[in-house]
Amino acid sequence: MTTTTQSYKALTDESAIALAESLNFFSQGAKLESQEIGDGNLNYVFKITDGESGKGLIIKQALPYAKVVGESWPLTLKRATIEANALKKHGEFVPELVPAVYATNEELAFTVMEDLSHLTIAREGLISGEAYPKLSADIGKYLAKTLFHTSDFALHPFEKKRLAVEFSNPELCKITEDLIFTDPFFDHETNDFEPELQTAVEAIWNNGPLKLEAAKLKKSFLTEAEALLHGDLHTGSIFASETETKVIDPEFAFYGPIGFDVGLFLANLIAQAVTREGEKREAVIRHIENTWKVFSSTFSELWEEKGIEAFKDTKGYKEFVLEKIFQDAIGFAGCELIRRTIGLAHVKDLDGIEEPERRIGLKKQVLQTGEALIVKRKDLPTIAAVIALVEEQN
Amino acid sequence: MTTTTQSYKALTDESAIALAESLNFFSQGAKLESQEIGDGNLNYVFKITDGESGKGLIIKQALPYAKVVGESWPLTLKRATIEANALKKHGEFVPELVPAVYATNEELAFTVMEDLSHLTIAREGLISGEAYPKLSADIGKYLAKTLFHTSDFALHPFEKKRLAVEFSNPELCKITEDLIFTDPFFDHETNDFEPELQTAVEAIWNNGPLKLEAAKLKKSFLTEAEALLHGDLHTGSIFASETETKVIDPEFAFYGPIGFDVGLFLANLIAQAVTREGEKREAVIRHIENTWKVFSSTFSELWEEKGIEAFKDTKGYKEFVLEKIFQDAIGFAGCELIRRTIGLAHVKDLDGIEEPERRIGLKKQVLQTGEALIVKRKDLPTIAAVIALVEEQN
Repeated sequence: MTTTTQSYKALTDESAIALAESLNFFSQGAKLESQEIGDGNLNYVFKITDGESGKGLIIKQALPYAKVVGESWPLTLKRATIEANALKKHGEFVPELVPAVYATNEELAFTVMEDLSHLTIAREGLISGEAYPKLSADIGKYLAKTLFHTSDFALHPFEKKRLAVEFSNPELCKITEDLIFTDPFFDHETNDFEPELQTAVEAIWNNGPLKLEAAKLKKSFLTEAEALLHGDLHTGSIFASETETKVIDPEFAFYGPIGFDVGLFLANLIAQAVTREGEKREAVIRHIENTWKVFSSTFSELWEEKGIEAFKDTKGYKEFVLEKIFQDAIGFAGCELIRRTIGLAHVKDLDGIEEPERRIGLKKQVLQTGEALIVKRKDLPTIAAVIALVEEQN
Repeated sequence: MTTTTQSYKALTDESAIALAESLNFFSQGAKLESQEIGDGNLNYVFKITDGESGKGLIIKQALPYAKVVGESWPLTLKRATIEANALKKHGEFVPELVPAVYATNEELAFTVMEDLSHLTIAREGLISGEAYPKLSADIGKYLAKTLFHTSDFALHPFEKKRLAVEFSNPELCKITEDLIFTDPFFDHETNDFEPELQTAVEAIWNNGPLKLEAAKLKKSFLTEAEALLHGDLHTGSIFASETETKVIDPEFAFYGPIGFDVGLFLANLIAQAVTREGEKREAVIRHIENTWKVFSSTFSELWEEKGIEAFKDTKGYKEFVLEKIFQDAIGFAGCELIRRTIGLAHVKDLDGIEEPERRIGLKKQVLQTGEALIVKRKDLPTIAAVIALVEEQN
């Protein structure tokens, strides 16, 4: 499935500048500088700036392989096209919440887009204690608008199915299928956890009822093409400031269950909240509550105002759909919490805690929360009940 | 979405014979005869025979439009490719239960396949009182094998998603979305029913809880890509005899919920059973029971022997999947019963009953059965409970 055509060539600072000059973005004769600011694991990220005008843009190029924990494996370049197209499609509905896309090139697998380097990656900011007052309202709106407008509730079925084909994304979905929905529930070599967690982890591997619910959630991820998801909406995929929020990196985009995007974001807020105390904790807890509140009210308004489904006014249908999304989201959040603690890819919110006893304690707590969210997801009627459950494990 | 390329040309008896001669199927110099045996609504069907050897084959060509109740509308020729590819894909798993495909042509939208004219369309045979002793065992096996083997339980996710794209079938799916899942539940111009049913039909249109459940089933049809369905598995899509069963016409094939194929077949058996009495009725009732029995036991065996899902041995997962398929199937069967009674496309089993009072009475009964199956589908634990419900309405 990996495409490395002969015409693919990694960009350099020089060729990135030449590319930027060709775009009519900077004024003619501007002296451009290039800086590669990517982490080099999956993509090159060139920041091109004109020191004089202060203007800048980003050129992101996919690498034909992924480096994770030292290993390297081939990874489709098609993800660059998926990412650019998802940014453009979602941008139709929330232009203020995603970077503008200026140019794309499928063969070279690059996307030229708005420079957002005046913002901070939300995860980093949250770890350093930021509150980002607009975060949950913006992400709630982002979720509702992108997901509603790409669903069967808003699109003609021909267009929805055309998009589902366009965004078929088997390789990146498989990463999620393995790393979120499978490996953490089995004694698998990709798992990664401190020896102190061995007992807790083995309890997961031996927890039949938990695994049954995880299997159902995996099935939903594999089969339910409800809307065009971001597919990887953790706090590391969000740029934020006091006044702005921008969602980036939708290379995992595909048609999947709406609750997945919602749940991933909620889980990453939970993983941050548990590391905090007092007022600062409350701020994140309020984000958890508000994300669902804004999502569900915005989704509900869109349903009423823009819904095209013949059954849209059938009593109870909207409520059924929102309840399904909620239950799915809570279950997916549980899977995300577990895999971020014992799977291949961790979060700095937890791993960055230096005091070992506290880190291990919090991780155990996060594992318990994850398990409870998965198993009890149909018995948690409100976001307040979810928050109560999170606090109970404290 | 409709493709009528310049190179498309309707076949004639002459060009069909020329095509047959080019295939190395008949012996050289054989004197071939052609007879167009299609009903002319959707496709041409040429039967080419060599009177001397008795050999024959079928050339089926899609027409670039559909004629239904006098109206004509454009319809994608791509359905010929979908049909041929579905026959071939399903044929990998049940070669004995589908016609062999000898040749296909995408531009001319034709498929050359095994001549099955020694068999009878099952609906016709059943209406004339046949029992077809092998019917349910064969269809149960057909359903289990085609659906299991094209699902995530048996396929690598790359292959499953490749097939889901290949079989994207928006135009034909829309026919189902409209005619089975939408129009019959609303006062829509495509509906067609005797004035004596007006009260019963209006009761459906005003039945909120029924419509809510129909909306959920429609959502499942729109979003759940579980397996490569036949997509139109009524008794008119099956050739049968005392000793043989062949499933034809999968032009509605797409990745959808497994229960849809199961439910459509069950509904058509129910619509036949209610027209019968005594022993003859019992024979069809036993087919209903046996279809589910054979389907579920075969699916279960395949799960154990060929399943690749990591959670396959997780306690309760197989049972959950089979229960979901069963509940879906019962709900879809209910929708099929309703639309076959008051929607655009009826069944001869009911429409062919000449005595008006009996016909209307049975149709009212079928409507009630359909409604009950939809609303109670989660409270019917076994196929015996479904049969009891069918008999209750009698």
